[in-house]
Amino acid sequence: MPDKVAAPEIDRLIKLLARLPGLGQRSARRAVLYLMKRRDQLLLPLAEAMQAAAESVRTCSRCGNLDSRDPCTICADPQRATGVLCIVEEVGDLWALERTAAFSGRYHILGGTLSALEGRGPEQLNVEKLVERVREEAVGEVILALSATVDGQTTAHYLAERLEDLGVSVTRLAHGVPVGGELDYLDDGTLTAALRARR
Amino acid sequence: MPDKVAAPEIDRLIKLLARLPGLGQRSARRAVLYLMKRRDQLLLPLAEAMQAAAESVRTCSRCGNLDSRDPCTICADPQRATGVLCIVEEVGDLWALERTAAFSGRYHILGGTLSALEGRGPEQLNVEKLVERVREEAVGEVILALSATVDGQTTAHYLAERLEDLGVSVTRLAHGVPVGGELDYLDDGTLTAALRARR
Repeated sequence: MPDKVAAPEIDRLIKLLARLPGLGQRSARRAVLYLMKRRDQLLLPLAEAMQAAAESVRTCSRCGNLDSRDPCTICADPQRATGVLCIVEEVGDLWALERTAAFSGRYHILGGTLSALEGRGPEQLNVEKLVERVREEAVGEVILALSATVDGQTTAHYLAERLEDLGVSVTRLAHGVPVGGELDYLDDGTLTAALRARR
Repeated sequence: MPDKVAAPEIDRLIKLLARLPGLGQRSARRAVLYLMKRRDQLLLPLAEAMQAAAESVRTCSRCGNLDSRDPCTICADPQRATGVLCIVEEVGDLWALERTAAFSGRYHILGGTLSALEGRGPEQLNVEKLVERVREEAVGEVILALSATVDGQTTAHYLAERLEDLGVSVTRLAHGVPVGGELDYLDDGTLTAALRARR
């Protein structure tokens, strides 16, 4: 179906918006009409917010979090316990855990899981930096907050082995995480329970 | 649920994106993470496309279409029949009709329907301009391509009465439009059939 009916500026905006997860061609068209009707209240502020985020948000060189500072607010916060490190796959998982307010340590973002199918080995993940941090930051406990999928659990096994000789206690999120589920989709209550009952 | 876990630039972007139709808080978070991972390929181009659309896209002073020119490309196209005017509620309806390629006349965008419930009278719609155009542009036929909802049909009745004394033939989209359905959601085939069988 050709979509050359609108001005090129509008067509381009529809095409780009349709690439976002959760939006298709049709919902992107609706979104653009909605935006064009709210030029000053939404379209321009959104353009500026995107520009600002692109300019100022960086990946934390220590933990892999997204923030406008490096080290990120969590890494730089003296109130956060330095002895406990929570390992997550993605920044979205860190956000999910932070919303529970049940964890007061620091994080380390792997950037995904090991995956035989997708050909992702340890060298594609943020693992060496993790080993380095465990050594240098006097970490007493590492919590593996990974998805309860096959790939997530394979990764947890691998990490537990890598950390075995470093004298750090390795725990995992406890029951409460539904098998096959992804962390970012859990409700906060389940996530809190799983964090408290870690083993 | 507080969402103060990320940098203010990210929080602001999530909040603005969540206001788009079809996106909630959760899908906006996913979209922002997706964007942050594709800074140069998607985030910056999207910011620029929004800026460009906000700067150059205007409402056509003749028909109410959105375009970077005024009069819009359709109004300015000498190939389009001037004698036939298709009345639609919104720009999205014009796009839907243009995708069928079954209509070669010009459009007039009302900006909605009459609505007793929402207190929308004729003065809130682009009606005076329509009457003016019918008089000045030697229009022989007006096609009322309005939704088959109560409000849409009330509006069609009202317009047919307003245009009665102007010596213009007033037609409507024929069977094919499902009762209670909205124009923008129709498939192109049904829309084409409805346009051809207008009465």
